[in-house]
Amino acid sequence: DPNVLIKNNRLKLSFLERLNFAKNPVTRRLLQVMCDKKTTLCVAADVTSTTDLLNLAEQTGPHICLFKTHIDIVEDFHPNFLKHLKEIAERHNFIIFEDRKFADIGNTVQLQYSKSMYQISSWANLVTAHSVMGKGILEGIQQSEGLKDRGVFLLAEASCAGSLTDQSYVDATLKLAKQYPDLITGIVCQNPLLLEEPGVIQLTPGVHLESVGDRLAQQYNSPETVVLEKGADVAVVGRAITKSADPAAEAVKYKEVLWAAYEKRIASQ
Amino acid sequence: DPNVLIKNNRLKLSFLERLNFAKNPVTRRLLQVMCDKKTTLCVAADVTSTTDLLNLAEQTGPHICLFKTHIDIVEDFHPNFLKHLKEIAERHNFIIFEDRKFADIGNTVQLQYSKSMYQISSWANLVTAHSVMGKGILEGIQQSEGLKDRGVFLLAEASCAGSLTDQSYVDATLKLAKQYPDLITGIVCQNPLLLEEPGVIQLTPGVHLESVGDRLAQQYNSPETVVLEKGADVAVVGRAITKSADPAAEAVKYKEVLWAAYEKRIASQ
Repeated sequence: DPNVLIKNNRLKLSFLERLNFAKNPVTRRLLQVMCDKKTTLCVAADVTSTTDLLNLAEQTGPHICLFKTHIDIVEDFHPNFLKHLKEIAERHNFIIFEDRKFADIGNTVQLQYSKSMYQISSWANLVTAHSVMGKGILEGIQQSEGLKDRGVFLLAEASCAGSLTDQSYVDATLKLAKQYPDLITGIVCQNPLLLEEPGVIQLTPGVHLESVGDRLAQQYNSPETVVLEKGADVAVVGRAITKSADPAAEAVKYKEVLWAAYEKRIASQ
Repeated sequence: DPNVLIKNNRLKLSFLERLNFAKNPVTRRLLQVMCDKKTTLCVAADVTSTTDLLNLAEQTGPHICLFKTHIDIVEDFHPNFLKHLKEIAERHNFIIFEDRKFADIGNTVQLQYSKSMYQISSWANLVTAHSVMGKGILEGIQQSEGLKDRGVFLLAEASCAGSLTDQSYVDATLKLAKQYPDLITGIVCQNPLLLEEPGVIQLTPGVHLESVGDRLAQQYNSPETVVLEKGADVAVVGRAITKSADPAAEAVKYKEVLWAAYEKRIASQ
C-alpha cells in the first residue's frame, strides 16, 4: 500500500515517532538517547591506547549517541579497562558499539563474539556484521552468551572506493535483515534504503565536514549530504574528531550540524 | 590462447611444476612444503586456549602444510605464546596462517593487521581477507609493517549456506586478486576458479570425511570431492581433527586421502 509507505516513510518521521516501530531493544534505547541528547553523532574511536580511548569517551561522551570501538586495534587492552568505559557510557548516556564487522561462519563468530580476550558480548550492546556469509553470523550472535540487550548493524554498502556491494548484494542484505527483526538495530549504508522500515536505523560512515579521502580508498561526504540526500539517521565521524586538537568542540560542531539537518529533513513534507 | 590455457591448467599440473608460476613468496614456500611433506592439509585450529593450540600444532604439525588460527578466539592469549608456536612451525615445517577475514576499510585493516595485542603481521605469513570492501584492504595489508614474506588468501566463495557470493561477486573478487599478484597467495572458494593461474592456490574449507553440517549453517564436502570435483589445492579440516580423540592419527588419515586425490587428479589427462 503506497499510502502506508508514504505515511511510514522513515525519512519523514521523528525519532520519537519511530521508537514505537522498533522491534530490537537496543534500537529503542538508541532512539531515546538520540531524542534526549539531540544527537545523531557516532564517534569512531579509532585509537590504539586505552588511555586515548577513555579520554575520547570522556570528551565526546556528552555529545554522542554511539561510541564506536575497534577493540582489536588497542595495544594495551586489559579487561579492567572495560569497567571504566562502561562507567563513562552510563554517566554520559551513550551506547557502546564494537565495530567488529563479523564475517566468518556462525560457529567462529560465536567464539569471536562471546569468548576470546575481549568477550565482546559482555560489554558491547551493538556490533557490526557483514552479510556476505549469510544467516550463520546472525544465528551465531543470537545464540551466544552475553548481554540480554544486543543489536546488530548489518553492512549493506561500504564508504570506500571499489567495494563489491552491488544492487543484488544490497537486496540480499536487506532481505537477510528482515528475517531478524528482533536482532537488527540497523543497516550500514550510503543511500536511503529500507524507507518502509521506520524501526530500523540507517548508520552512515565516511562523514567529514571537508569532503576529502585518505590514501587507502576511503571516501567522505558532508553531514548535510548524508542526512538530507543519503538518508543517514546516525552519522559516523572518525578522524575529523579523533585527530582534532579539541575533540569535544569538534564533536559539538558535528552534533549540531547533523541535528539541524535531521530537523530540516523531517520538517520538509 | 586455448592451448596455453590447457597446457597451464592448474588442475593438471603438479605442485612442483606450479612453483615457477607463483609470484608471491609465501605461495612458493607453501608449494615447496606441500611437495616436501606430501600434504595439502590445512588444520583449522579453532580452539580457545593456548595450551590446546600448541598441543594441536605439535600433534598435527608433521602432517600439515598450513596451521590456521583464529587468534581472537583464544582466551588466555599472551605474546610469549607466539614464540612457542613459531618454534613448532619451524621444527615441523608448516606455515602459520591467521584466518582473520579482514573486512574493514584499509586504514582500520592496517591497524588490525600490524597493531593491537596480536600484531598479526609479525608472526602470520598468511592471512585471509574479504573482497567486499574493495582494494583498500589489500593496500592496507601491503603497506603495513611486519614480516617481509606475506600472502593473502582472498575469499571468493563461502562454505556456509545462504552466503551472498554470487557470480558477479566471485568475478569481482578474481579481478581484484589479479591486480595484486605479488600479494595474493590464493583464493578461498568451493569451485575450480582461476584455472589459467597455476601460480595461485585454491583453498577450500568445509571438508569432512562424513558429509554433514552443523547447527549454524556450515556445510561439508568429502576430501575426494573437494580435490577432484571442486578443484581444491589445499583443504581445510577443522572439527573432524580438533574434536578427535587422536588429532595426529586423524590428520594422517586426511593427509593421505587428500594427497591420493591430488595424485589421481594430475595423473588423469
